[in-house]
Amino acid sequence: MSGNSFGRLFKLTTFGESHGTAIGGVIEGCPSGINIDFEMVHKEMSRRRPGQSSIVTQRSEFDKVEFLSGIFDGVTTGMPIGFIIKNNNQKTKDYSHIKEVFRPSHADFTYNLKYGQRDYRGGGRSSARETACRVVAGSIAKQFLSNISITAYTSAVGDISIEDTYDKLDFSEIERNIVRCPDSLVAEKMINKIKSIRKKGDTIGGIVSCVIQNMPTGLGEPVYNRLHAQLAKAMMSINAVKGFEYGSGFSCVLMKGSEHNDIFNKDGTTKTNYSGGIQGGISNGMDIYFNVAFKPVATIMQTQDTIDANGNEVQMHGKGRHDPCVVPRAVPIVEAMAAVVLADFTLLNRLSKK
Amino acid sequence: MSGNSFGRLFKLTTFGESHGTAIGGVIEGCPSGINIDFEMVHKEMSRRRPGQSSIVTQRSEFDKVEFLSGIFDGVTTGMPIGFIIKNNNQKTKDYSHIKEVFRPSHADFTYNLKYGQRDYRGGGRSSARETACRVVAGSIAKQFLSNISITAYTSAVGDISIEDTYDKLDFSEIERNIVRCPDSLVAEKMINKIKSIRKKGDTIGGIVSCVIQNMPTGLGEPVYNRLHAQLAKAMMSINAVKGFEYGSGFSCVLMKGSEHNDIFNKDGTTKTNYSGGIQGGISNGMDIYFNVAFKPVATIMQTQDTIDANGNEVQMHGKGRHDPCVVPRAVPIVEAMAAVVLADFTLLNRLSKK
Amino acid sequence: MSGNSFGRLFKLTTFGESHGTAIGGVIEGCPSGINIDFEMVHKEMSRRRPGQSSIVTQRSEFDKVEFLSGIFDGVTTGMPIGFIIKNNNQKTKDYSHIKEVFRPSHADFTYNLKYGQRDYRGGGRSSARETACRVVAGSIAKQFLSNISITAYTSAVGDISIEDTYDKLDFSEIERNIVRCPDSLVAEKMINKIKSIRKKGDTIGGIVSCVIQNMPTGLGEPVYNRLHAQLAKAMMSINAVKGFEYGSGFSCVLMKGSEHNDIFNKDGTTKTNYSGGIQGGISNGMDIYFNVAFKPVATIMQTQDTIDANGNEVQMHGKGRHDPCVVPRAVPIVEAMAAVVLADFTLLNRLSKK
Amino acid sequence: MSGNSFGRLFKLTTFGESHGTAIGGVIEGCPSGINIDFEMVHKEMSRRRPGQSSIVTQRSEFDKVEFLSGIFDGVTTGMPIGFIIKNNNQKTKDYSHIKEVFRPSHADFTYNLKYGQRDYRGGGRSSARETACRVVAGSIAKQFLSNISITAYTSAVGDISIEDTYDKLDFSEIERNIVRCPDSLVAEKMINKIKSIRKKGDTIGGIVSCVIQNMPTGLGEPVYNRLHAQLAKAMMSINAVKGFEYGSGFSCVLMKGSEHNDIFNKDGTTKTNYSGGIQGGISNGMDIYFNVAFKPVATIMQTQDTIDANGNEVQMHGKGRHDPCVVPRAVPIVEAMAAVVLADFTLLNRLSKK
Repeated sequence: MSGNSFGRLFKLTTFGESHGTAIGGVIEGCPSGINIDFEMVHKEMSRRRPGQSSIVTQRSEFDKVEFLSGIFDGVTTGMPIGFIIKNNNQKTKDYSHIKEVFRPSHADFTYNLKYGQRDYRGGGRSSARETACRVVAGSIAKQFLSNISITAYTSAVGDISIEDTYDKLDFSEIERNIVRCPDSLVAEKMINKIKSIRKKGDTIGGIVSCVIQNMPTGLGEPVYNRLHAQLAKAMMSINAVKGFEYGSGFSCVLMKGSEHNDIFNKDGTTKTNYSGGIQGGISNGMDIYFNVAFKPVATIMQTQDTIDANGNEVQMHGKGRHDPCVVPRAVPIVEAMAAVVLADFTLLNRLSKK
Repeated sequence: MSGNSFGRLFKLTTFGESHGTAIGGVIEGCPSGINIDFEMVHKEMSRRRPGQSSIVTQRSEFDKVEFLSGIFDGVTTGMPIGFIIKNNNQKTKDYSHIKEVFRPSHADFTYNLKYGQRDYRGGGRSSARETACRVVAGSIAKQFLSNISITAYTSAVGDISIEDTYDKLDFSEIERNIVRCPDSLVAEKMINKIKSIRKKGDTIGGIVSCVIQNMPTGLGEPVYNRLHAQLAKAMMSINAVKGFEYGSGFSCVLMKGSEHNDIFNKDGTTKTNYSGGIQGGISNGMDIYFNVAFKPVATIMQTQDTIDANGNEVQMHGKGRHDPCVVPRAVPIVEAMAAVVLADFTLLNRLSKK
Repeated sequence: MSGNSFGRLFKLTTFGESHGTAIGGVIEGCPSGINIDFEMVHKEMSRRRPGQSSIVTQRSEFDKVEFLSGIFDGVTTGMPIGFIIKNNNQKTKDYSHIKEVFRPSHADFTYNLKYGQRDYRGGGRSSARETACRVVAGSIAKQFLSNISITAYTSAVGDISIEDTYDKLDFSEIERNIVRCPDSLVAEKMINKIKSIRKKGDTIGGIVSCVIQNMPTGLGEPVYNRLHAQLAKAMMSINAVKGFEYGSGFSCVLMKGSEHNDIFNKDGTTKTNYSGGIQGGISNGMDIYFNVAFKPVATIMQTQDTIDANGNEVQMHGKGRHDPCVVPRAVPIVEAMAAVVLADFTLLNRLSKK
Repeated sequence: MSGNSFGRLFKLTTFGESHGTAIGGVIEGCPSGINIDFEMVHKEMSRRRPGQSSIVTQRSEFDKVEFLSGIFDGVTTGMPIGFIIKNNNQKTKDYSHIKEVFRPSHADFTYNLKYGQRDYRGGGRSSARETACRVVAGSIAKQFLSNISITAYTSAVGDISIEDTYDKLDFSEIERNIVRCPDSLVAEKMINKIKSIRKKGDTIGGIVSCVIQNMPTGLGEPVYNRLHAQLAKAMMSINAVKGFEYGSGFSCVLMKGSEHNDIFNKDGTTKTNYSGGIQGGISNGMDIYFNVAFKPVATIMQTQDTIDANGNEVQMHGKGRHDPCVVPRAVPIVEAMAAVVLADFTLLNRLSKK
């Protein structure tokens, strides 16, 4: 109810502030009998962690996950999986300059109004640091869903974007470059773009695309719990996201029904896939694909006018080490949230028939 | 869990198939003491009902709501509000041509796989007829939220679209034309577009935009229950929706942080509103605005290739009276879902402080 | 959240006041493919309905259930099952004498404080009329759980009680007498007791016992959702219930561990069953048995001192036709709630393993 | 859903096995602005901890709570409160004798069936060690509910019991003796009883009674979420509980309506309180009181016949340090769960009116 949980049967609850002792979470509903590959968890965490490359924040956090329960002799027991990730950097002094100040387009102002106070150290609870817990849950969900392939990648950074549809791309290229773009030439331009933006102390937006292949049919529930509605909620819950579209997305507006309808093959697959693998909210076995738009990071290394808690006009200048573009590190987060959604619906789908 | 409910504290649960005896629902959590204007409920229903104009389906359904509980002497009692809407047209013969056939880009195929059977009369549960119940709940929610103004309108039909931002528009024009577009010149083009599409037995997509004004601060919850994440889920749960964006939306991708950040005025309002009235998932009191993309209706009055339940290739031809463009009737549904979301968060916001 | 729902996966939501147009409910999560025997539903309703015998209220209500959705050609479709039961007796005049008065040990006073008003016609929402909806849901749940046998019976009325343990009783006798006691001699005494109490315009308490046989193993969840905890909540949610115990119940207090422990047979059954078929909150396949204590009905045909809404001392005299003892009609309600609990846990148990 | 959470708005989710690295939990929904007295938390933990006296288990665990989030500068922030309690004793060797054996009347057998495996170190997840987390949550809830007084005490150990009603007792005596009985003479008998039982390597049952004073009106929700139904679930979810009764409880069976009805005073209080402070599921401001029956602990220091995982008949002998009677340490757990229930309903009660 308080907004710190996601999922219904496969459920993640997280806690923790960016500069507290630790962040962590509880994964409930993970079935028993799954062999956990801890190396794989670590690898997923590395894809999200700060300091991983020259185009992301240079903060150094290792994000070591400590599992406290629910896994015994390397196998899930069906019991809740509790975990924590200690925060290395708990010094509050770096943030003293924002203690009394509301940063523009951050959550400082709204949290302060809603709760009557706030943890001013970094973003506190509203910091994207929380997404580390999502990657933990996603890496467990992926191991439960071992037959399904979930692949996210950077498809746009500012005005640099991939034009090809996903089936034309070489996904093996994604992790070979630091911006996580499957087209190496476009990747280079994106990287240069981000470096150029950073030099100006500015930030830039981008798009993460995600493709889910080898999908089973039947995932998703009628009416209010459509698969794409829950995917939308999952993605829109990630920090800095402003838009979501799946299948034909916003481009469907320009299309006619006679063009947009996906005609069946005899085996139940479809000749086209404008539906994005989902019909009536339920997966039809075709690939699911969707786009997630991320705004430019609000923390910039420039002087900005703002107000303080007393309504005085003040100036602030961004300090610290921040991402000039959130998209490269958002790629594993998008995958993680997709995995959590699919794990949940996989369990729900066990309930449909007598 | 089964997908037939929406909301947490202010909660709608619906039931019913398009061609059963009746559809209906239960509104739980509506506080006591609200005077209900039944005429207003009726008016909202009329905005959604079939047969309302020359550019929507010509089916004739009056959609009379019968309230069964929770309202006594015209005032809500805090008890669940049960209601039904009888279906006038329960004849199954109109749908005999689709009994054995999976309609392209409909839910027939996926429901059949998931449940092992389906109610083949129209869309059954997957029909957009269910949205009538949403309008009932929305009309109650609006009366609870009497200070908040929620206005949706048609902003695009195919390639005909409004270019102005919402603050340039005259909302009083919306209900003066049958396509519900606040710009009368654009409205005329849209209407002609729809008429032309219908003549070819085809359908076309569109966009509904929504603006929420006079917003209180503090609505929305941290992390997974961000206000915009729940709005996204609400909108994506409406039939035929393929995309959602709020505030700067997908256009944020092209922007720099130095442009996109909304600088505060001394009173806590902001000079720009790329944030779309929401920061950190919580309303900041500025207007909320968002766009919802609707695909072209899948039922077209043309011959289509498809398959039947035995995997045979067959041809089908759309019959009956369907919408050539869903957008004009979707306007009140978008408003209703927005109202249900806001009612829920209004109640949640009573819990934040000691 | 508002208290009108029960269950998680197999879920009942009800609405309606005792003297409104209709009461009703929605059953969500019932799997597809169950053939519904409507005659059986009707029979269960008859066991609960007023006017069924000389020892219950003589109000005449036929309690005809109208199913509105979720069942097609006699088979569940997996969609929500909406239903209503019209109220025959909607005259408010019979209740004018209590409009301004708080009846002792009823919910009038607390509802009025909590909601600022109340539907004064009978108990409104707090009336036991709501339990008719539980019997509908229970009758569907029983058909889903066709292999499990759920048997409730009257084991005490005032100081008249059955001394035998359930395995000594002939359950086929239960429906042969109007008090629903499996021992015909005791039944006769109970009936006489109730008749004698009624003559004095008074009421009396009683106990309903319930036995669940042919139980599968594995139903129940760890820690907070133990099978017996949910059974307790289910039973305590029935009007007039004051206590719940299962297995050895309150008598366990006097026992030593060496007596109370249930020693295993080689096949996993146990030599004794003080555990009541549940260990660690999860069914072990042995019979489940529990007792539910019902207070004497608060409406008595005697003059009572009370207060009105203005705090004035007034006298009131019970009118109308009420139950002198609620237990005979509570038997099917206890069974229904047990069935709903078991249906829910049966679905939950599909989720435990990979 | 998986059973590891309790509460709806004020919600506790726990994780951890008795012999894992740590147990812990997340408290969601605790409002902001509560000053936390950590000494009080510590004191509550001490009342539950092993080794506290000569009549409880002599295991030595200090149960130090580490709060990881949600409290900043000693004040709750409205964010989830994560906490862990490290397990001192993680050696598995003490439990090797039960690795292959199902202990009678423990959860070993049922967990093994349900999950296909189990953490055989002690009870794993089913161990009462989990209740330490409940005491943490309860101590936070009590600080939120600072005006309400919640007092539990031992009212029976085997056949030694308090006969007085609670209003005759001196609650200040409870913490002065190690069995937590408010009557010092009865306490002495209870202590002797437990010592005598322990000498025989046996265990004994008991009753914990609880009284809630200075109750506000309006707590509890209609129909399925009655205050007493949720209290019942809370108590029945505690390890070893077999029965719950509130107000007149099982003794109501023998009473007539004319005796049992609580007649109002002019101020809305009642002359008697058989209702136990709750009418129609909602608190009326009178004291709430209830009894909870605990079975004798299943682990006894005697040789018992049982079976192993292969169905072989084997003998086992209890080892380690266990409680001869669970009741003295259950007293703070009952209070904690009552506090969590009341905190939840206090928040829910903010939602009833417009």
